[in-house]
Amino acid sequence: MKLTLPPRVSPAAFDAALTAYTGVVGKDWVMATDADRDAYSDIYAPGSNEEWPASAAVAPSSVEEVQAIVRLANEHKTPLWPVARGKNLGYGTAAPRMPGSIVLDLGRMNKVLELDPKLAYCVVEPGVGFFDLYEKIQREKAPLWMSVPGNAWGSVIGNALDHGIGYTPYGLHARNLCGLEVVLPQGDLMRTGLGAMDKNPAWHLFPFAFGPGWDLAFTQSNLGVVTKAGVWLQPEPASSLELVFDIPEEGDIGWVIDTIAPMKISGLIDQNVFIPSWLGKMVLKGQRKDFWDKPGAIPESRVAELLKEHKLGYWQVAMRLYGDEPVVKAKAEIVKAAMKRNLAAPPKETWWHQGDPINAFEITMGVPSAVPLQMSDWIGGRGAHLGFSPVVPASSEHVLGQLKRSRKIIADHDVDFYASFTIGGRFANNINMLMYDRDQPEQVANMRKLFDALIAETAAAGYGEYRTHIGWMDKVMSTFDFNNHALRRFDETVKDALDPNGILAPGKQGVWPAAYRDQAGGGRA
Amino acid sequence: MKLTLPPRVSPAAFDAALTAYTGVVGKDWVMATDADRDAYSDIYAPGSNEEWPASAAVAPSSVEEVQAIVRLANEHKTPLWPVARGKNLGYGTAAPRMPGSIVLDLGRMNKVLELDPKLAYCVVEPGVGFFDLYEKIQREKAPLWMSVPGNAWGSVIGNALDHGIGYTPYGLHARNLCGLEVVLPQGDLMRTGLGAMDKNPAWHLFPFAFGPGWDLAFTQSNLGVVTKAGVWLQPEPASSLELVFDIPEEGDIGWVIDTIAPMKISGLIDQNVFIPSWLGKMVLKGQRKDFWDKPGAIPESRVAELLKEHKLGYWQVAMRLYGDEPVVKAKAEIVKAAMKRNLAAPPKETWWHQGDPINAFEITMGVPSAVPLQMSDWIGGRGAHLGFSPVVPASSEHVLGQLKRSRKIIADHDVDFYASFTIGGRFANNINMLMYDRDQPEQVANMRKLFDALIAETAAAGYGEYRTHIGWMDKVMSTFDFNNHALRRFDETVKDALDPNGILAPGKQGVWPAAYRDQAGGGRA
Repeated sequence: MKLTLPPRVSPAAFDAALTAYTGVVGKDWVMATDADRDAYSDIYAPGSNEEWPASAAVAPSSVEEVQAIVRLANEHKTPLWPVARGKNLGYGTAAPRMPGSIVLDLGRMNKVLELDPKLAYCVVEPGVGFFDLYEKIQREKAPLWMSVPGNAWGSVIGNALDHGIGYTPYGLHARNLCGLEVVLPQGDLMRTGLGAMDKNPAWHLFPFAFGPGWDLAFTQSNLGVVTKAGVWLQPEPASSLELVFDIPEEGDIGWVIDTIAPMKISGLIDQNVFIPSWLGKMVLKGQRKDFWDKPGAIPESRVAELLKEHKLGYWQVAMRLYGDEPVVKAKAEIVKAAMKRNLAAPPKETWWHQGDPINAFEITMGVPSAVPLQMSDWIGGRGAHLGFSPVVPASSEHVLGQLKRSRKIIADHDVDFYASFTIGGRFANNINMLMYDRDQPEQVANMRKLFDALIAETAAAGYGEYRTHIGWMDKVMSTFDFNNHALRRFDETVKDALDPNGILAPGKQGVWPAAYRDQAGGGRA
Repeated sequence: MKLTLPPRVSPAAFDAALTAYTGVVGKDWVMATDADRDAYSDIYAPGSNEEWPASAAVAPSSVEEVQAIVRLANEHKTPLWPVARGKNLGYGTAAPRMPGSIVLDLGRMNKVLELDPKLAYCVVEPGVGFFDLYEKIQREKAPLWMSVPGNAWGSVIGNALDHGIGYTPYGLHARNLCGLEVVLPQGDLMRTGLGAMDKNPAWHLFPFAFGPGWDLAFTQSNLGVVTKAGVWLQPEPASSLELVFDIPEEGDIGWVIDTIAPMKISGLIDQNVFIPSWLGKMVLKGQRKDFWDKPGAIPESRVAELLKEHKLGYWQVAMRLYGDEPVVKAKAEIVKAAMKRNLAAPPKETWWHQGDPINAFEITMGVPSAVPLQMSDWIGGRGAHLGFSPVVPASSEHVLGQLKRSRKIIADHDVDFYASFTIGGRFANNINMLMYDRDQPEQVANMRKLFDALIAETAAAGYGEYRTHIGWMDKVMSTFDFNNHALRRFDETVKDALDPNGILAPGKQGVWPAAYRDQAGGGRA
């Protein structure tokens, strides 16, 4: 795509900045052709790739280079949009929130710096992907498991910083972060927690330290560039048992939540329990047109036929227990008895013991996979999706309310319904995958209207999203409006103190530095 | 004690401020007599109570009153030192870091605002003590357990904000906080997380929300006054089994750590495992003079006799498992087999089942108690203690190193050794209780030298403390010196942005606002 300059930067000043960056990383790692800009655009964008254009990208290979670039960005007033690997499909991939930002691509910083099999953690750079870390663990035969998101082609750190979730006992990825190294917006280097003492061996082990805790302040944040992080890993259990329950009816999600959440809160179940609706299985069986060849949402009568034909429940619970075999057995009896109160059919049980092979697609055992990406093919054409992701209390009342509400809005827009609830404890993450063909402008337009409606009606009911696509960050942040947007005012006060030139990720999550607050979209209330 | 004015505040200006506060809370709740000042002094102070004097105290009863006081404090330039209940013995109780600060006593804000038996959390104000919450839970017959610190006469919120620890599965108290309401340093009101959306029912359930996470930034912090917090509670288990192991020798702590830590990290043990040295039991049996009547540390030969006489191991591990009986039984077999590899004697086992009475002193079942306060009597006179609290990795190498180092320093100062290690996961909190008689000036002087030596030598070895007494906050913060104190510089940048008048808790944890940075002690490096 053609060049879009950052706000208030002249072509000459922009070129001068790129020349300065070249002095740091060499000319191969400053990328500013039309093709380069395409490569950093949102390949799932609901609309034109050019709506959120990067002007260029620069890819440092070390902390020192990141510091040098950040300092130059302040000097040249050329804002940066840091991405770890830029693979956050459905939320914007590598594209920046503010047009003309320069992508700071951290993909070259891809070293696993430490891997401790006993204390069960690693220290990684932001470019380390889930597959990279997996390979490293296998190569070293470390008895450790990861927790991975559905589509695991992204960055370990990037996903955790974006509040990503997985489906193991370590499924709240941000909670696995312990001890960060951060380049601050003016180029200074800080280490959080006990890392503020040089060579403190407990840096990545103890989550609080002396004074305020900052690790989570750097999540979904534009306050710094995380260049290194400790990430806790799960010790490989002695055994594991998968219990797969098919849940027949849509409304059954109520008792399912009220049965599983208490066991998750009590610790009997330590996994994040993922409960996807039927379409999650169906997208792996073919394309939409193989099952329904008309436009608009698949009618309920056809859905009922499909479930019958493919022997699928409306929901599927693939629960996994971990630990020593006698403990897992005792837990399984309790889980099965609890589920049996509402479900006659017993679960499908699959045991695994240390030394057994692990299937390539075992998300609940932390094996990275890109299989769920296949849903991009479901709709046909340049298939894409947006994720609508509110959080609700883990109780039937709230889950059924959320289901009914989003189900109706999605049906009103004549779009297929594909949702999951993940029980992470006292709450459930509800992710609604909204699929569309980027080559069908009317589908795209409808999708945008649908997304606006979901945000507005969900907020009106009192619930909020935990992440969103770059194009809706201002709108979602605006729904967090207690005391005249006190949270955003706080975020922006801190932002301005740390980043007076507003150089780092302006607009990230709806937080704008003073220097670029005029660039916030109309969605900012 | 006599009045010490805040820095640069004239007597007339001080009186004007108190008059203004009186307008908010009424005259009964502005306390400024010599006796009032004594009441807010550090009753365990190693030295004179007057070393860290409050000038007055003001006690609001509502969020609105807190906001009004904070605004007036900005207007009158009279710094505030917020305390929840001011019971943090060994770390400064209610006394302020900066002489002349006005204690903002939140003890009157003592409502339990919510108690949810199903989703297992409560919402409390800062004045709610552990005993208050316990009574409320009993009264409502809610099937919930708390996690309490050793001496549980303090505030639930205050202890969590100060990184306090307990000995249950919810023992990392700061991790139980979810969703805060905070009065910011200029009087604005903010709610963190999903609470930034008014009436969002998942506020106290989901620990991350949209944008940067701030809950932990308000721990050990002077960035705001927490007026309300969600606190997660443990669902009452169906049963529980206590396994008490007597560990004979000092050096055994090595294999104990290497045995227990992996089981804690894997989740087999979900409790924070507390491992106190013998003196923890002995202080409950009488006074020091009953066992050794000479000054200086009790010699090792006498310690050996005492352990024999009282049938005590050097360490004691009171481990507790929680859950459904078959699960607990299966876990217990694994724990016992693991411990047996190094310890012939089987543990003392005590079962509890739902409905059984609970002893009044069951810290591992979340029953609040003040029994450990008895250690104040050990030494005689006006007995007091200081806590020296470094954190080390949960492995024998680091724990034995820390034990050897602090043991030697404490012995060199001829002081009794009383330590505990608490395994919280990948780390262990090492708390060294240093006991002294406030009426013996030479004991106090020796204690201060000892404390300085512990901080300096521990830092030289690469380890840091996770909390400390107000008198040593500058020294400890100074040991976190990576990149020219980057962490403190960050803390202070944020502080100055949010608190331009430096009105809230100047010097807390060694973080000073620009307005009072000249008041930092000589310990600030």
